[in-house]
Amino acid sequence: MLGSTKSNVTVGIAVLGGIAGLSYALAAAAAPPGGTAAAVEFTPDGKLKRPVGYRKWVYVGEVVTPNDMNDGEASFPEFHSVYMDPESFAEYEKTGKYRDGTVLVKELSGVGSKKAPSGNGYFQGEFTGLEATIKDSKRFKDEPGNWAYFSFGHKYPLKAEVSKNSVAACNQCHQDHAQKDDWVFSRYYPVLRAAAPRSK
Amino acid sequence: MLGSTKSNVTVGIAVLGGIAGLSYALAAAAAPPGGTAAAVEFTPDGKLKRPVGYRKWVYVGEVVTPNDMNDGEASFPEFHSVYMDPESFAEYEKTGKYRDGTVLVKELSGVGSKKAPSGNGYFQGEFTGLEATIKDSKRFKDEPGNWAYFSFGHKYPLKAEVSKNSVAACNQCHQDHAQKDDWVFSRYYPVLRAAAPRSK
Repeated sequence: MLGSTKSNVTVGIAVLGGIAGLSYALAAAAAPPGGTAAAVEFTPDGKLKRPVGYRKWVYVGEVVTPNDMNDGEASFPEFHSVYMDPESFAEYEKTGKYRDGTVLVKELSGVGSKKAPSGNGYFQGEFTGLEATIKDSKRFKDEPGNWAYFSFGHKYPLKAEVSKNSVAACNQCHQDHAQKDDWVFSRYYPVLRAAAPRSK
Repeated sequence: MLGSTKSNVTVGIAVLGGIAGLSYALAAAAAPPGGTAAAVEFTPDGKLKRPVGYRKWVYVGEVVTPNDMNDGEASFPEFHSVYMDPESFAEYEKTGKYRDGTVLVKELSGVGSKKAPSGNGYFQGEFTGLEATIKDSKRFKDEPGNWAYFSFGHKYPLKAEVSKNSVAACNQCHQDHAQKDDWVFSRYYPVLRAAAPRSK
């Protein structure tokens, strides 16, 4: 009887192991109890290693600030795909809050085309850059809102690890324009607005 | 010894059960061996029920065809967020092919703003529509490429279930312009291009 039960459990694990969900599940399970971000890694001297696996995180929205609408040089060229780590997103769905350890990754890509069979518009070209912001009340206790901002560059090859940016470079703008939404420009991200419990 | 092993396995399952990844994993595990789409459901008479949970699928890209760049009325207004069911994406990563049962969901949202602190551009407003395409060589054996296309509407409230569109309404355009990429406009989706094994 015990043997049979164990066998069923083993089969169940084998099935889970064979599918895409498992790496996602294990990544989330690796979060330490302290609530700091396990979705990303830091070097011993506090630099953020370039995130991996974020294209399977939860997509929260897209912005396009094309160069041709910004005097030829957008501050964040040009498409911005924003992702949140899945465990923090699950918490956000329950509470509407960004938990300690929340990681938002912004992947940049260029405009590849402005005309397609579906019409005129902006169509993604190649990946160009990567940025991230992390909320952590211990690691970033001196940052406004406890959010630190990192940029791995706006052109390839991306940097492998980077120190956080100065408050003036990133945080200040988020604080000035989005402090009421905990420093996140959720007004531009309908996925975030729809996921918050107050909207259900 | 056996008891100890079983206990460890049970603990492992409990840990997995407590995290966000499990519903994702179970959804994928529910796919029947026949290879048809378990990520979505059909009515007994073959209509597609409106997909749920797709905002936690794998995001494959964004297009914006704004009304103001299309004589005031885009064919697909205006932002298109495209998602693939995770199990099919995992297969795509291994083979570069869209397996039988692949579901691509296109969620539409309007332009909410054209100016933000990050610059001029297009910023997402509210959700407006939902479409889907499914490849299934059994269920859609008579459709070109075995892809069928569905639209739940371009304004809310969305339809709860819909029949597939005629070939002329959707498939023909995909066939005319993207047949070499199995009817998918992957040229506009760098996530798909990067995930295909030939690019690694």
